[in-house]
Amino acid sequence: MSSSIMSVMRWLSEDEQATWRAFVHATTLLDDHLDRQLQRDAGMTHLYFALLSTLSETQGRSMRMTELAEKTKITRSRLSHAVARLEGNGWLRRESCPSDRRGQMCVLTDEGYQEVVRTAPGHVAAVRAAIFDRLTPEQTARLGEIARIIAEGLHQPADADLPWQR
Amino acid sequence: MSSSIMSVMRWLSEDEQATWRAFVHATTLLDDHLDRQLQRDAGMTHLYFALLSTLSETQGRSMRMTELAEKTKITRSRLSHAVARLEGNGWLRRESCPSDRRGQMCVLTDEGYQEVVRTAPGHVAAVRAAIFDRLTPEQTARLGEIARIIAEGLHQPADADLPWQR
Repeated sequence: MSSSIMSVMRWLSEDEQATWRAFVHATTLLDDHLDRQLQRDAGMTHLYFALLSTLSETQGRSMRMTELAEKTKITRSRLSHAVARLEGNGWLRRESCPSDRRGQMCVLTDEGYQEVVRTAPGHVAAVRAAIFDRLTPEQTARLGEIARIIAEGLHQPADADLPWQR
Repeated sequence: MSSSIMSVMRWLSEDEQATWRAFVHATTLLDDHLDRQLQRDAGMTHLYFALLSTLSETQGRSMRMTELAEKTKITRSRLSHAVARLEGNGWLRRESCPSDRRGQMCVLTDEGYQEVVRTAPGHVAAVRAAIFDRLTPEQTARLGEIARIIAEGLHQPADADLPWQR
């Protein structure tokens, strides 16, 4: 490593560097693993499953587009693209919002709901095998606590550049 | 939530569900935040920066393509696509491998190296602000330990479907 890169990396301690590398490796492998399992089982990505399952858990199985983007922490343009694909599969549909003529609702169809019911067991089993079967209850609690600190931090600055506001 | 979805979700305990949601939110927001910072500062994604910085830390600033895919935990096709883009920017080049005529080396150019040197401070500052400034040293250590358990688990099964072997 050259001295200029070294001096930058020293802004992180040895422990922080090791944690950061392990975290990037774990999340890269996990994203690939869960996408792969869902692609194989249902021809959809983890994001698509997250959108359908979020709607399946909501009163009326429908949500405003802006609220669905916030709930899943993605940009409006990424949501629009995904919704167009999922609409093409017949798993959801867009409707105009009764209370706001400029707003749009995203509604899970019965076919979409059945797809969540069919796909959820394999997905949950993959999450369990990759994470919770390997962690002690205490590690699970700590991971939740740490993830909440990181997520809250990224919401906080007054100028926070939140995906769903784009 | 309908009883069929509920019964699947019960395969995870309340604590596990809460941890899983917080983890997905944190990693989705963090990916977006780091990509956004690097796009603004250098017109590249976090993956592109990871490839360039991995090469910058390697003896001779070069690595076999297969080794670079394994080191960054991505598929060969994702690597090929990224390398073609980064080659177009003049930040790296491909060379045939001296010891294996079928193998290809990925070499960081001087321009690519200067780009890492220029971009690293902003990226490291973003990682520090989003994670390490918010965690205690003990939480940092626990996060590293948990990330290593998850990453090792995804390498382990005899039939593990590892990205860089595709």
